[in-house]
Amino acid sequence: MEKSDRYERGWNKFLETQGEAGVQAMERLQDIAPDLAKYIIEFPYGDVYCRPGLDLKSKEIAAVAALTALANAAPQLKAHIHAALNVGCTRQDVIEVIIQMTAFAGFPAALNGMFAAKEVFEKRDTEKSVQ
Amino acid sequence: MEKSDRYERGWNKFLETQGEAGVQAMERLQDIAPDLAKYIIEFPYGDVYCRPGLDLKSKEIAAVAALTALANAAPQLKAHIHAALNVGCTRQDVIEVIIQMTAFAGFPAALNGMFAAKEVFEKRDTEKSVQ
Amino acid sequence: MEKSDRYERGWNKFLETQGEAGVQAMERLQDIAPDLAKYIIEFPYGDVYCRPGLDLKSKEIAAVAALTALANAAPQLKAHIHAALNVGCTRQDVIEVIIQMTAFAGFPAALNGMFAAKEVFEKRDTEKSVQ
Amino acid sequence: MEKSDRYERGWNKFLETQGEAGVQAMERLQDIAPDLAKYIIEFPYGDVYCRPGLDLKSKEIAAVAALTALANAAPQLKAHIHAALNVGCTRQDVIEVIIQMTAFAGFPAALNGMFAAKEVFEKRDTEKSVQ
Amino acid sequence: MEKSDRYERGWNKFLETQGEAGVQAMERLQDIAPDLAKYIIEFPYGDVYCRPGLDLKSKEIAAVAALTALANAAPQLKAHIHAALNVGCTRQDVIEVIIQMTAFAGFPAALNGMFAAKEVFEKRDTEKSVQ
Amino acid sequence: MEKSDRYERGWNKFLETQGEAGVQAMERLQDIAPDLAKYIIEFPYGDVYCRPGLDLKSKEIAAVAALTALANAAPQLKAHIHAALNVGCTRQDVIEVIIQMTAFAGFPAALNGMFAAKEVFEKRDTEKSVQ
Repeated sequence: MEKSDRYERGWNKFLETQGEAGVQAMERLQDIAPDLAKYIIEFPYGDVYCRPGLDLKSKEIAAVAALTALANAAPQLKAHIHAALNVGCTRQDVIEVIIQMTAFAGFPAALNGMFAAKEVFEKRDTEKSVQ
Repeated sequence: MEKSDRYERGWNKFLETQGEAGVQAMERLQDIAPDLAKYIIEFPYGDVYCRPGLDLKSKEIAAVAALTALANAAPQLKAHIHAALNVGCTRQDVIEVIIQMTAFAGFPAALNGMFAAKEVFEKRDTEKSVQ
Repeated sequence: MEKSDRYERGWNKFLETQGEAGVQAMERLQDIAPDLAKYIIEFPYGDVYCRPGLDLKSKEIAAVAALTALANAAPQLKAHIHAALNVGCTRQDVIEVIIQMTAFAGFPAALNGMFAAKEVFEKRDTEKSVQ
Repeated sequence: MEKSDRYERGWNKFLETQGEAGVQAMERLQDIAPDLAKYIIEFPYGDVYCRPGLDLKSKEIAAVAALTALANAAPQLKAHIHAALNVGCTRQDVIEVIIQMTAFAGFPAALNGMFAAKEVFEKRDTEKSVQ
Repeated sequence: MEKSDRYERGWNKFLETQGEAGVQAMERLQDIAPDLAKYIIEFPYGDVYCRPGLDLKSKEIAAVAALTALANAAPQLKAHIHAALNVGCTRQDVIEVIIQMTAFAGFPAALNGMFAAKEVFEKRDTEKSVQ
Repeated sequence: MEKSDRYERGWNKFLETQGEAGVQAMERLQDIAPDLAKYIIEFPYGDVYCRPGLDLKSKEIAAVAALTALANAAPQLKAHIHAALNVGCTRQDVIEVIIQMTAFAGFPAALNGMFAAKEVFEKRDTEKSVQ
């Protein structure tokens, strides 16, 4: 599969936001649906996330808000909590966005979002202490 | 009904973000469910929106993201597009957040979000030109 | 189309809960999809709503709760607010259920549910004053 | 953190409905987001669940209905099935509400709700037989 | 804005499925968010809808199913009911898919989907009789 | 419980589409809610799935589309991916439908759908190699 410019810049943006964990998820996808893997890199990362206008921190705040509110995509919510922290949001920023979702999507959605954040924070603490 | 401190600071935050249009919506609610009107001011505005940590622009980016993605609350999405503009987001910021939702919630949700934004922008243009 | 026992008892339950407005909606459906009209009477009304165990008031409380929370079926929410009132719930009961949904589904869902209730209450007031 | 009146009465209502399992969930939340823990006690329990007008059984029927229909908050659905039983609903009441959700939210939502109920009932049987 | 190959083949697929009504919707979008208009043509139409493997009738059956079940995007549901008919589905095929959604998403979603289909069918009848 | 004609033909359709795995799920349900088990066989299978008009492959394409897009019923999505393969869809057909859902429901929904498909495909490979 030839790599388009969109793919190249998308892959860089994907690495910048999702890091090594993202690469592993992409490999699991590669086996079954390589075209979906390609589209993810090209469209959300190569097109949307590379757009100027909003900085990456704002984009990840929007991502955490939407995925907490939708409340039906736990793996992607965790991936974007990692991404938010990778691009400079603080843990408290993430917590604030999730608390805000009580108002828009109710307490169960916010609670499950917060437990996802807790899992992400603990994973990052463990990995740091291992190094 | 006595006004609590939470109500007072919530009302100020409500005015700052939602403006005159918000006041009218609240009056329509007052007739039928004054307690719900009170809770809205006290909890989302008095508690959540008054929290320090994230600036109001980030909070409104999160709100527009969540409501576009949920795609089932058009009046509140429009109210928060107004709010985003009232607290300093540019129209392009709003457009960017809505475009980003194609990735998280699909094109129909983003399209309907964008037409809501179009309606808000046109309303603000009309009101400005009338003055 | 022969009428099954399920249809007969479903139609009676449908009339008891939905009243004349329900009959009109069913007629509009009859033109395009008579089988769907038949299924509605047979399954939700003939099977589910005829079950013993929960009284009709509790069933309509559950219906208003679910439809307010789902927030994507305004005509059916209004129909079940009518039904709740037809089977003995008070207006305040309906208001209480909708307020409760702030906790489970967020404020936008509850607000739009409450405006649906307002519309139903006003329609019933108008019809009563006309007689 | 000072405890408000809303917190005190909310905590009592929380204990009455959610019991010991609820306390443990709240402790896990306390570590990461004590303010969210506080809001849950104050707003849904201190404000909403303490409202007069609907009895607690009706409130839990509404909760089980909404969470089954939303179908995206399994831990909270189980917590409210426990709560329903704690405040006097029978197991059959819970089953009836979940069956009713086939009509409003489809069979997958009702099926997953029923398997959640099964898990709750088995847990309560085990705990009783242990004592 | 230069037109990519993806855009060219996407535009042809868009015309084939959505017809003249789609062009008008795209023009309304062009004013406010030309990049979103471009992405719609390039990604869903240029990439996804141009994929071999499933014929267009199957793709539109999938589209009508998903949009009926999601129940939060009426304009796009109507556009894809038009598209289904444009690519060779019969009206009865559309009705069958919507009836099937009672099982997966409940009766309110199916009912509102059916009323959307009714509106589309009537519009097509009117336009035909005008010619 | 007497078996109606609807039950008999529904059970045959259920076996044809869901196979042995479906029977096991139904047995788990039988313990707690035999009436729900009966309704599933009678209504979705005895009424809806037995309708003429759309072939079973098209019905399963619609099912996989809707359940991928709703993104809140993983066990039923997997069951219908099995069913799609049982009635003659290829693995690539399933993959195509799920890829298409990126457009209607966003990338997280499509990704989680694809990982569900991967699990189903691997299970079928394991079972085949065991025989």
